[in-house]
Amino acid sequence: MNYFKMSSDQLQAEYQTLAEKYDACKAQNLKLNMARGKPGAGQLDIISDILSCLVDPAECKVDGIDARNYGELAGMPSARVYWADVLGCRAEQTFLGGTSSLNIMFDVISRAYTHGLLHSPRPWCKEETVKFLCPSPGYDRHFRITEFFGAELITVPMTADGPDMDMVEELVKDPQVKGIWCVPKYSNPDGIIYSDETVSRFANLKPAAPDFAIMWDNAYCVHEFEGEFIPFPDIISLCEKAGNPDMVYEFASTSKITFPGAGISVLASSEANIAYFTKLYGVQMISQDKINQLRHVKYLKDKAHTLEIMKKHAEVLAPKFKVVADMLEQEIAPAGFAQWNRPVGGYFVSLNTMHGTAKRALALCAEAGVVMTPAGATFPYGKDPQDSNIRIAPSLPPVEELQKAMEIFCTCLKLAALEKLLNKN
Amino acid sequence: MNYFKMSSDQLQAEYQTLAEKYDACKAQNLKLNMARGKPGAGQLDIISDILSCLVDPAECKVDGIDARNYGELAGMPSARVYWADVLGCRAEQTFLGGTSSLNIMFDVISRAYTHGLLHSPRPWCKEETVKFLCPSPGYDRHFRITEFFGAELITVPMTADGPDMDMVEELVKDPQVKGIWCVPKYSNPDGIIYSDETVSRFANLKPAAPDFAIMWDNAYCVHEFEGEFIPFPDIISLCEKAGNPDMVYEFASTSKITFPGAGISVLASSEANIAYFTKLYGVQMISQDKINQLRHVKYLKDKAHTLEIMKKHAEVLAPKFKVVADMLEQEIAPAGFAQWNRPVGGYFVSLNTMHGTAKRALALCAEAGVVMTPAGATFPYGKDPQDSNIRIAPSLPPVEELQKAMEIFCTCLKLAALEKLLNKN
Repeated sequence: MNYFKMSSDQLQAEYQTLAEKYDACKAQNLKLNMARGKPGAGQLDIISDILSCLVDPAECKVDGIDARNYGELAGMPSARVYWADVLGCRAEQTFLGGTSSLNIMFDVISRAYTHGLLHSPRPWCKEETVKFLCPSPGYDRHFRITEFFGAELITVPMTADGPDMDMVEELVKDPQVKGIWCVPKYSNPDGIIYSDETVSRFANLKPAAPDFAIMWDNAYCVHEFEGEFIPFPDIISLCEKAGNPDMVYEFASTSKITFPGAGISVLASSEANIAYFTKLYGVQMISQDKINQLRHVKYLKDKAHTLEIMKKHAEVLAPKFKVVADMLEQEIAPAGFAQWNRPVGGYFVSLNTMHGTAKRALALCAEAGVVMTPAGATFPYGKDPQDSNIRIAPSLPPVEELQKAMEIFCTCLKLAALEKLLNKN
Repeated sequence: MNYFKMSSDQLQAEYQTLAEKYDACKAQNLKLNMARGKPGAGQLDIISDILSCLVDPAECKVDGIDARNYGELAGMPSARVYWADVLGCRAEQTFLGGTSSLNIMFDVISRAYTHGLLHSPRPWCKEETVKFLCPSPGYDRHFRITEFFGAELITVPMTADGPDMDMVEELVKDPQVKGIWCVPKYSNPDGIIYSDETVSRFANLKPAAPDFAIMWDNAYCVHEFEGEFIPFPDIISLCEKAGNPDMVYEFASTSKITFPGAGISVLASSEANIAYFTKLYGVQMISQDKINQLRHVKYLKDKAHTLEIMKKHAEVLAPKFKVVADMLEQEIAPAGFAQWNRPVGGYFVSLNTMHGTAKRALALCAEAGVVMTPAGATFPYGKDPQDSNIRIAPSLPPVEELQKAMEIFCTCLKLAALEKLLNKN
């Protein structure tokens, strides 16, 4: 029954029932984790063959290049072709990173601060103020990079079509606004796919800052767990057509395709930006791990074959997302105090609970042995002004554990809401 | 015959003979490369088994950690133990980098600039001037990192025992002097092993800057190509004993043990520094490639077994260094205008030719199809004040090619010297 329609006595009775249920859960001393978008063991097992797909040294020589030696800072040509195929851009527009796309994002922002981007009038550290747009709820690790370099983080609300573009278009008139973080497909955590109009408005932005940077983290570009692959526009050519060729930096990795932290990553951008960053990277390294690049290309082959592998991931992931959806539908929907999304890709379910109760709900979870992404993490500075948004990451636990964790989570959500309704804290 | 004892006619005759020889070489349109410390194909073939040593996913789970998933930012415990064994420090004093130790060095200096080191009163970018000591001849990529961040590079001469420590001890009294680049064993390019006294004087430095950083690039820690392994003191414990526990950052990698650019690297320092940098690295990445860490530990096992592998590298490298030594002895020694070292480890032979002729000699080489490290590269800003030092990197070409390249190199050295003696330019 809807909590807002209950009498005080009914609320009190509901509270009593749930408190007893909660104490029983706590007594089980569970240790369950829904904190991070970490693939589960079942997904890792799918990929085992990549370990043995490149064992012949003769296969390390491709395109006249010996991947076993130094060289080819921008990456093996075949790896650049692979990413171009996946992202829909050209091979010349790609630069292979190491195992972590986050690290390339960090390097781009870090270099913007110390040396400036291609069109920067000066390094960002010489600017009085640098402001960065953070569509929220969003990814805490993005926000933290720009916070680390002292940027002022500005929250932009998310809509069903992506970031609020009216607001973005207004904010970029400020020359101190130097960029924006985006997860355009299956946004973290909302699972929203930016609409074509949103993507087009991004490409056609007219920022006052000549070095405005769209940080386009296409982390979930092929990560459907339900239904068929959904094509997505190539932002790089759209920006080029709009006369903003050097405005976007796209990122992707195989962290959730092969092995997290042991995959390959990519920066995709205009050829001018790739040339600029290849030159900068030349100061910090001689070349990336080209053997791992070849190993990945041999195993993943191309976009079509990658999508086949993603279908296998989907088989493991879909039942987990179903547990989350079913539990929320059954346990939380009737109470009427929370809303959540039902994505068909990505790694998260984003839930908005009764305002002012997210922190408390997750504290109750922690006490009962269920670790969640901290409340507030999805907003700049880790502060959700409404204390409402919670990111659920169902990928890591096996289904049975997830069922248990979601039970406790729903109980805690309701307890926190009831405490608020009953003025218990 | 010694050029300085020749008559003008004799010099002219020698010049004529060599010029003809040079033209004949040029006519062959050769393409030979002695520019970089790149292992040759023969060395890469030694290591082939590392490609197939970790193919069973069950072996990816070690110490209760699944290397296939995110986590363990400082590295797999077994990989930390491996590096501690090789370097003679403790596992807790290590942090596993990616494939490139140069990249960790870059990150340390980059973070010193943007955020400061553990004992920095402020980030280096907020200092009016940062000065960095560059023992020279030295490694161009080291110097370039500090140049990239705007440091003033100060040349410190090398002696047979390492950098001129009288000068270093004097210079560190200046609080603007923030650090020094060192390759303590088989220094690049001189091949000098710092004496115990030099190492001890480093550990006992009393710099005015509280955040003075010894960048101790132990790139050739196990890289003897002649004779037995030469033990080397652990700088970290020496610094600790001297009351300077956080002053040194040691680096190493397997780039010249397994595959260049596809190996594993390490930062070794005090536990306090490792904790500080682990925290900083947490902003830029979730974890390094732990599968590659395990692959390396399984293949290299420990220091003892690594030394056995290094013996195999030595079998390939030693004949190449012999070609260089023999050619110089035969072609250049009699002429009396150049000096060079005869290292038993590392990747280079450092040669000092007649002052004012190094650039010209290498221009002649280039014209005849022999690529060398540019003259001057071994000094800050790429400028050798005496235009004399040349770094010879004999590892890449096969012996027959190397023979040919050295023949041309010696011819060019002599031609450039003769031009100078005959006032031809």
